[in-house]
Amino acid sequence: MPDATSCDGPGSEIPATGFVEDGYELWLRYRPLEPRYRAYCSLLLKYVVLPTVMLSPILAAARDEINRGVGGMLGCAPSSESAVSADGGLLVGSPTTLPLVASLDLPLDGLGREGYIICPVIVNGFATTVIAANEEIGLLYGAFALLRAIQMGRFDADTKIESAPKSRLRLLNHWDNLDGWVERGYAGRSIFNWWELPEYLDPRLVDYARANASIGINGAVVNNVNASSESLTDPFLEKAAALANRFRAYGLRVYLSAKFSSPMESGELATADPCDAAVKAWWKQTADRIYKLIPDFGGFLVKANSEGQPGPQDFHRTHADGANMLADALEPWGGVVIWRAFVYSDDVPDDRVGQCYSEMIPFDGLFRKNVILQVKNGPLDFQPREPINPLFGAMPETNVGIELQITKEYLGFETHLVYLGNLWQEVFSTDLDARGCGNIVARVIDGSMFASRLSLVAGVANVGSARNWCGSTFDQANWYSFGRFAWNPDCDADEVALEWIMLTLTNDPNGMRTIADIMKMSYETAVNYMAPLGLTHQMGTGHHHGPAPWIEDTGRSHWNPTYYNCADAKGIGFDRTDAGSGTVRQYSAKLARLYSSPYDVPENLLLWFHHLSWGFVMPNGKTLWEEIVYHYDRGLRGVERNRALWSTLRDTIDPARFYEVSAFLQIQARDAQMWRDACVAYFQSINGLETPEGSLRPTQSLEFYKALTFRHAPGSPG
Amino acid sequence: MPDATSCDGPGSEIPATGFVEDGYELWLRYRPLEPRYRAYCSLLLKYVVLPTVMLSPILAAARDEINRGVGGMLGCAPSSESAVSADGGLLVGSPTTLPLVASLDLPLDGLGREGYIICPVIVNGFATTVIAANEEIGLLYGAFALLRAIQMGRFDADTKIESAPKSRLRLLNHWDNLDGWVERGYAGRSIFNWWELPEYLDPRLVDYARANASIGINGAVVNNVNASSESLTDPFLEKAAALANRFRAYGLRVYLSAKFSSPMESGELATADPCDAAVKAWWKQTADRIYKLIPDFGGFLVKANSEGQPGPQDFHRTHADGANMLADALEPWGGVVIWRAFVYSDDVPDDRVGQCYSEMIPFDGLFRKNVILQVKNGPLDFQPREPINPLFGAMPETNVGIELQITKEYLGFETHLVYLGNLWQEVFSTDLDARGCGNIVARVIDGSMFASRLSLVAGVANVGSARNWCGSTFDQANWYSFGRFAWNPDCDADEVALEWIMLTLTNDPNGMRTIADIMKMSYETAVNYMAPLGLTHQMGTGHHHGPAPWIEDTGRSHWNPTYYNCADAKGIGFDRTDAGSGTVRQYSAKLARLYSSPYDVPENLLLWFHHLSWGFVMPNGKTLWEEIVYHYDRGLRGVERNRALWSTLRDTIDPARFYEVSAFLQIQARDAQMWRDACVAYFQSINGLETPEGSLRPTQSLEFYKALTFRHAPGSPG
Repeated sequence: MPDATSCDGPGSEIPATGFVEDGYELWLRYRPLEPRYRAYCSLLLKYVVLPTVMLSPILAAARDEINRGVGGMLGCAPSSESAVSADGGLLVGSPTTLPLVASLDLPLDGLGREGYIICPVIVNGFATTVIAANEEIGLLYGAFALLRAIQMGRFDADTKIESAPKSRLRLLNHWDNLDGWVERGYAGRSIFNWWELPEYLDPRLVDYARANASIGINGAVVNNVNASSESLTDPFLEKAAALANRFRAYGLRVYLSAKFSSPMESGELATADPCDAAVKAWWKQTADRIYKLIPDFGGFLVKANSEGQPGPQDFHRTHADGANMLADALEPWGGVVIWRAFVYSDDVPDDRVGQCYSEMIPFDGLFRKNVILQVKNGPLDFQPREPINPLFGAMPETNVGIELQITKEYLGFETHLVYLGNLWQEVFSTDLDARGCGNIVARVIDGSMFASRLSLVAGVANVGSARNWCGSTFDQANWYSFGRFAWNPDCDADEVALEWIMLTLTNDPNGMRTIADIMKMSYETAVNYMAPLGLTHQMGTGHHHGPAPWIEDTGRSHWNPTYYNCADAKGIGFDRTDAGSGTVRQYSAKLARLYSSPYDVPENLLLWFHHLSWGFVMPNGKTLWEEIVYHYDRGLRGVERNRALWSTLRDTIDPARFYEVSAFLQIQARDAQMWRDACVAYFQSINGLETPEGSLRPTQSLEFYKALTFRHAPGSPG
Repeated sequence: MPDATSCDGPGSEIPATGFVEDGYELWLRYRPLEPRYRAYCSLLLKYVVLPTVMLSPILAAARDEINRGVGGMLGCAPSSESAVSADGGLLVGSPTTLPLVASLDLPLDGLGREGYIICPVIVNGFATTVIAANEEIGLLYGAFALLRAIQMGRFDADTKIESAPKSRLRLLNHWDNLDGWVERGYAGRSIFNWWELPEYLDPRLVDYARANASIGINGAVVNNVNASSESLTDPFLEKAAALANRFRAYGLRVYLSAKFSSPMESGELATADPCDAAVKAWWKQTADRIYKLIPDFGGFLVKANSEGQPGPQDFHRTHADGANMLADALEPWGGVVIWRAFVYSDDVPDDRVGQCYSEMIPFDGLFRKNVILQVKNGPLDFQPREPINPLFGAMPETNVGIELQITKEYLGFETHLVYLGNLWQEVFSTDLDARGCGNIVARVIDGSMFASRLSLVAGVANVGSARNWCGSTFDQANWYSFGRFAWNPDCDADEVALEWIMLTLTNDPNGMRTIADIMKMSYETAVNYMAPLGLTHQMGTGHHHGPAPWIEDTGRSHWNPTYYNCADAKGIGFDRTDAGSGTVRQYSAKLARLYSSPYDVPENLLLWFHHLSWGFVMPNGKTLWEEIVYHYDRGLRGVERNRALWSTLRDTIDPARFYEVSAFLQIQARDAQMWRDACVAYFQSINGLETPEGSLRPTQSLEFYKALTFRHAPGSPG
């Protein structure tokens, strides 16, 4: 045998040791502060005063986190005192648990259950910092906010932070099956090991709860929306209860996806008809069983009559019938029903994009008070870019929540660097009536537009068993940013990115600037190389990874990329104006008018609403074809730019994460080239046009791209 | 909604922080030594002398490990010097790389490529420790041995260790699919992420290689024996090459499982007939492609004509035809073919247990020199206890290697505490001709019995993406122990356990004794509650977890537990004597005679070889029925005893691992009760006998146990 000892080739450049910075700590790293700032903070955080009676689990969690955080950053944890007796105390309490806080007369009224105040106060003549809240969970959130401020170097003697969440429910949706497989998961297996539960709970579940609490997420739907009725059986409820017991100290409630046909699958009933008395009784008993085990159970998430899932329509009943029946079962216990609006008929539609609106609008005002309609941000399905879902603002009598996708099913999985904060900011700030009066999506979501009783921001989780939780360093930013936007849909994506960078990667000013720059353009870059100018649904079937604009023969026409691009010899795009499918009319009159004109519609939605000739002249004088190719090229250049920027950080970032990001950017560059070339080659085969001047021809033939396979792509069913 | 803040119930007792002792470091923990011993060792390990020219990757790995280990244990890494100039030097080199070592005239001749010597020497008048070897890999192994000795407190100025492996190939077999799923894996997903390879290699792959090198494992078959032909395509070979590049510095070679029908599945040929010239050429080209990418590629592992896998018999050729054709393709490059003997016909056999022997014996002497037959330890399939496979010692003209199963497919998955060292010692020390002359299995495996050219110990890996690698703390002991037995099949299981305990868990004398006690009886305990007295294959179909002695209707009769227990109103057990299937004659004459008598056969194999009446009187005077129930009870008591022992270690073991083991012992106790009760209830339904005096009746009815399901059991296909 040859005695080969060379270490060349791929793999040789990775760090030589495995005991490396591995991303497990997320944004809760608590590394020692720069010495001068550390000395300063030490004067302000000498000791902590907490309620002296036995601490509740939530307050104990807050205390532990303060000790961990301050201990890590300042070198030693603050001492614990029972009274304010010197400068530099940190007072943590609510008016009811700590009389001293009551005496401070802080403006807690507008902060609700979960808000908090951090501010300087004088107590007994001593300069003191207080974290105050109406309830204990607010104190925990406040503790995380204080630690965040310290980590970012933003804490000082004058620090005043007042914050309260704008949405009541801020949930992760885990598309995790009971066998540990995660649908659209790119970060290993599920963190929920149902096989070992309830006896064994992985310690990382505590860190999962901490991470969520640190950004204000207050609930987790722990099983896939494509649900198994088994989740509602006693053995699995006992497992879910063990999770709930573990999460409770972090204000994180457990929710379950419920399969609508469960009464039948249990073998107990022959129907799941929501108007059947036995069915109603079955769900009431199920709710009773659940709340006996999980007294603070959040509620059910339901995907009904959607993509093959059972639902009330199977029994000739409506979505309202189905949701209300479940809502009645949960109501006595305070639970909610989260009903997904992601429904579309099995029949071939005129315009798939209009179905969700058409199906749901008739039910406005008909849902119970504890039902929330969970609406995806766009009307299709988490595509790289979509216009806003027309249901937002259109159901004043309904609790409407939003569903965002944190896992990057359509945005390059774990290996493409795509920061989603900018996408979410675009969504939340969309002006629903185009009048500039602040009637933006955020006002629907925070419940203020229609004084909704319940408000909800849900995100499809990107969390898995991977050591770094999300499969890549930068996907941690999407979990973080989701939490920040769920807390406050008006926040600024770039500012959130900067926070995350400081907490997670570096405080070096040049490093921060460089990484912020990378993140800021990353979303637009991905849209450009995948689906520019309002194109959509151009990916391959099933795996959803690579390009396949040519596919025209899936089981359903509205699963075909050709259905969406409508490319022919003359032009490209889907006409949704009155001359076409007319679904533009689902938007408010003014918005519909805007979108109906190819000259007024935002350029990035042009081909979503319009079918235009390849020679259509864009405002900048280019033809549409030139503009399309230009955007693909820009996507490619954007990735190369990010690679170049990242490569300057070799001495700023620890070797393991530097290497990981470098390797993934290499993958992203390869994939961007493939997307660009495959799409250009396909459209050229349709329109017969040359590549515009200044652009390169695709590197391979169209046949080459058509023959590409994406074997063993993670996260695809079947 | 209720504001529940209680933290009672399952889950509340787990450690409050997630940043805990998580098992990732395995037995390479290098924690600071006790101060006096540290001071002593510091005098002996002041500086290191390595070859001064540019270090090869293997020597660099040795240096890094010494720095990491000594640095961790003594507080600072030794300085690096170019010459021996004071007492307390550590000299690391081979005669060819370090002239000084050549001048010491150490007895390196018998140590081969991989052996090493550690001993005290006087150099230039200075007291020095030397690690010497013929080749660099021996130096790396020596470095690990030295670090192990220090960790265990066994290193001193007189330490002399001479060691060389007794088997040439010491391999892990990963049953890992390309999509990351692991067949019979209980530790998460595969550590090989083919989707991200070759661009990205997880840093933990380095630690995987380090862990293997530390116990002398020198190869890894990185894909499932139920193989995909895709592994041999260029994209996947490039990924495998990236792994090989990473593993090379640790002496770890990459092997691949090869699917026999690959030439057809590639679409290039219409046949995979091993005697077809085009097929031969296809495999030669494939070998060429592989070695171009992986110059030190180890070879192919092949599961052919076994459980539905394709093989030479599909073309009316023999195992020898198939293996030799592949061997010829690899021979020019120095590669080997590892041909699995785990074959059994699809037809209903008289005795499934005899098939492997019958099929393989005719080929003795017909295999090429670079073919190794990989034979499972027993003739069936890794059951809790089997007699030795009769092929051992029966094929003098063939390279015969052994396949052990580290992953506990039939021994309680990750949650049962079962230390396998004692099983392996039982296997390796089995006297093949029952003459007490040392003709034991170990002599076949180390190649000495028949002067075999190639020797092999293979283990089906229990390694996965779980943070602690193996799914549980104690399963790490099985990986460790496998490596130690592969290096030296004559080693002592209890001594290996003690080593592992000291390296991994504690040096506290009481803790060591207690844990050694737990481990020592753990294997026999599991056999007792699952399949005592030579019973076998009593588990449920597919998942292989819980008890199902009643199953009689699977697709093939020899998959039925009833086929193996042969329980009827009169008796129980499989008659393999001349009066029965006669397969006992596959053993050597003297062994066959021993096994043929129900009075002489080891009690623990009684029902493997004999069908006996329930009233058969055992040597101790009990009836067989009483003895069977007594063994089940003993299994149950053994687990309870281990729980009680472990509970005394709360202050000895760190909280996270203490909790994990406690929780898993709770699961094991539950499962042991289920196994015992289900089997007793079933056999009672057959024999109509009462539970013997002193034994409790099963806690539930037989119907209860029959209705148990093991949903979402990890590791089962389909």
